[in-house]
Amino acid sequence: MTQISRIGIIGGGQLGRMLALAGYPLGFTFCCLEPTANPPMGQVAQQISANYDDEAALLELAARSDVITYEFEIVPVNAARMLAQRVPVYPPPNALEVSQDRIHEKRCFERLGIPTPIFVDVNTSDDLLSAIQQTSLPCVLKTRRFGYDGKGQWVLRTQADVAAAEAELRQQPSPTGYILESFVAFERELSIIAVRSTTGEMAFYPLTHNVHRDGILRVSQAPSTNAPQTLAEGYATRVLNDLNYVGVLAIEFFEKGGALIANEMAPRVHNSGHWTQDGAVTSQFENHLRAICGLPLGGTQVRGHAAMVNLIGELPDVDGVLRAPGAHLHLYGKAPRAGRKLGHINLVANSEAELQARLQRATHL
Amino acid sequence: MTQISRIGIIGGGQLGRMLALAGYPLGFTFCCLEPTANPPMGQVAQQISANYDDEAALLELAARSDVITYEFEIVPVNAARMLAQRVPVYPPPNALEVSQDRIHEKRCFERLGIPTPIFVDVNTSDDLLSAIQQTSLPCVLKTRRFGYDGKGQWVLRTQADVAAAEAELRQQPSPTGYILESFVAFERELSIIAVRSTTGEMAFYPLTHNVHRDGILRVSQAPSTNAPQTLAEGYATRVLNDLNYVGVLAIEFFEKGGALIANEMAPRVHNSGHWTQDGAVTSQFENHLRAICGLPLGGTQVRGHAAMVNLIGELPDVDGVLRAPGAHLHLYGKAPRAGRKLGHINLVANSEAELQARLQRATHL
Repeated sequence: MTQISRIGIIGGGQLGRMLALAGYPLGFTFCCLEPTANPPMGQVAQQISANYDDEAALLELAARSDVITYEFEIVPVNAARMLAQRVPVYPPPNALEVSQDRIHEKRCFERLGIPTPIFVDVNTSDDLLSAIQQTSLPCVLKTRRFGYDGKGQWVLRTQADVAAAEAELRQQPSPTGYILESFVAFERELSIIAVRSTTGEMAFYPLTHNVHRDGILRVSQAPSTNAPQTLAEGYATRVLNDLNYVGVLAIEFFEKGGALIANEMAPRVHNSGHWTQDGAVTSQFENHLRAICGLPLGGTQVRGHAAMVNLIGELPDVDGVLRAPGAHLHLYGKAPRAGRKLGHINLVANSEAELQARLQRATHL
Repeated sequence: MTQISRIGIIGGGQLGRMLALAGYPLGFTFCCLEPTANPPMGQVAQQISANYDDEAALLELAARSDVITYEFEIVPVNAARMLAQRVPVYPPPNALEVSQDRIHEKRCFERLGIPTPIFVDVNTSDDLLSAIQQTSLPCVLKTRRFGYDGKGQWVLRTQADVAAAEAELRQQPSPTGYILESFVAFERELSIIAVRSTTGEMAFYPLTHNVHRDGILRVSQAPSTNAPQTLAEGYATRVLNDLNYVGVLAIEFFEKGGALIANEMAPRVHNSGHWTQDGAVTSQFENHLRAICGLPLGGTQVRGHAAMVNLIGELPDVDGVLRAPGAHLHLYGKAPRAGRKLGHINLVANSEAELQARLQRATHL
């Protein structure tokens, strides 16, 4: 029997739901800390209904858990540190802290010799012009914290864009500041899902090719043709070891001229790794749980060719999805709302050509 | 969105647990009716804690469900019929009734022209000798009802066995009677997992080769070399259509000299189909749910070569299992007890030889 059997999760969204569904067969039980009613994870596991920084609720979660993890990265670092004094918390709170702030994140990449866009700390509208002299146009202004799915980002291409951004900063300065990054005219966006166990064992999934639209991930595909896998694994290894990381870590790269330029990282299971549920020997969800419990990691090989299509805003024609060969439906138990991730379809196929045909069909469902 | 979203299940054991885990990604919710505390399914779904024949509890289950199914076949037929007046119940109660009684089951096979062992109805010890004249020795005496995993079965090979059985029948007559069957010296035990939807759509998994020990299934493997797939599908089709069946149906056959002799059927997802979770395009659990909800059935092809090893009585060395290539662990959340099914290991491989090597290793964990 595994020593660790009770998993506590801060957050109760779809990532927590899929962690629980992946972990039940290993004999784990799950409890989430989540303030919203009937959340995706609360439908399939125990729930403590309270805010993420509610100290009494955090202590209750600790009392009910052998190990604690989280399924989104905006967990208050102080809460994670407080919990870590009582029960193991993975990924470690320092990794959480680094990934919550785009400046810290990029400094980490820089320190480890991992290429990253030119970046400059911007606190006030006055900083912007001098920052642009370093990045040059086009560039991207982002809030340092709490941005996701393209929110809190502005691409600056012209002097008019710059003037608008200056006005924005003057009117609504972010309490936590901004980062200005050079714009990378990339060829592909690739991400690596890496995992490291409490034992130090590491594993890497094949690089995934991601296509975004309106700042939201639409389609992921693996394996990616001619992807620089060794390079990506080397970069990921540096981050994992440097942060003494435990669990799944996702790093998003821009690919340009054979180089990989690190854009950001997420200290958790990641949307670009959802294809592993049906397309890999072991899913990212199961491997995250194995890692935080110190169990041997499972195989990360692709079973054939795999892709994932996000279901955003509205639910699909379920009949149509289930009729599509090689398609697997994953719904999160959420009500439809514009821009909301409601589920995804995983596709598996025996060849790249077959996968493309299935992808073509699935994106029109 | 699927029309049917709330699934009620009579019984809360591991089959219900695996149905729920397979159904959450499709957006279903689950409630079981189960009297025991903390059962495998109750750990991952809602539970109404009451006996299977508790009328108020059954009505509550009906009120909370869009469709009802069961995960064991000893469900009281009257309860199923009562529920069916309120909400769809699948498989249909008549299929439940046929499969609950070995005499009815064998008469069904016989009526449909499906080979089955010679069988004779035995009510008292006086019937036994004349019955043996029809089956001849060796033969197998079984209770008509409530037998499973080899319980309630006696193989009669000698006159001494017959005398002992006569004494047994005289002392403890079964209230529901016995069946005497000719003993089939089979070459292999094969089972087919078949599924039929409310729409009449049917699908069949490749024949599974099963190895029992002490009356309990130990290892299943698919596909089976040179298995008479077409013959088995033909037989299964007759049963499915005759019973106007909906859901997964398992039929166990003895294979002898190229013929298939039907031994028994189970009106539910079946232990010999557990390999489909990791080794088939769609699992038997998902296909059962698709069938009872009238959704298109999923692919039943084997992904390579697959096998299942039951974990009986004691839990395995989890580290060892997870370290084994191609192995997937499925625990049921049950405490160890002699003879109890606690979980299973699914193995997948790219070739028959690789599967055999993995099977060899897994059976020694």
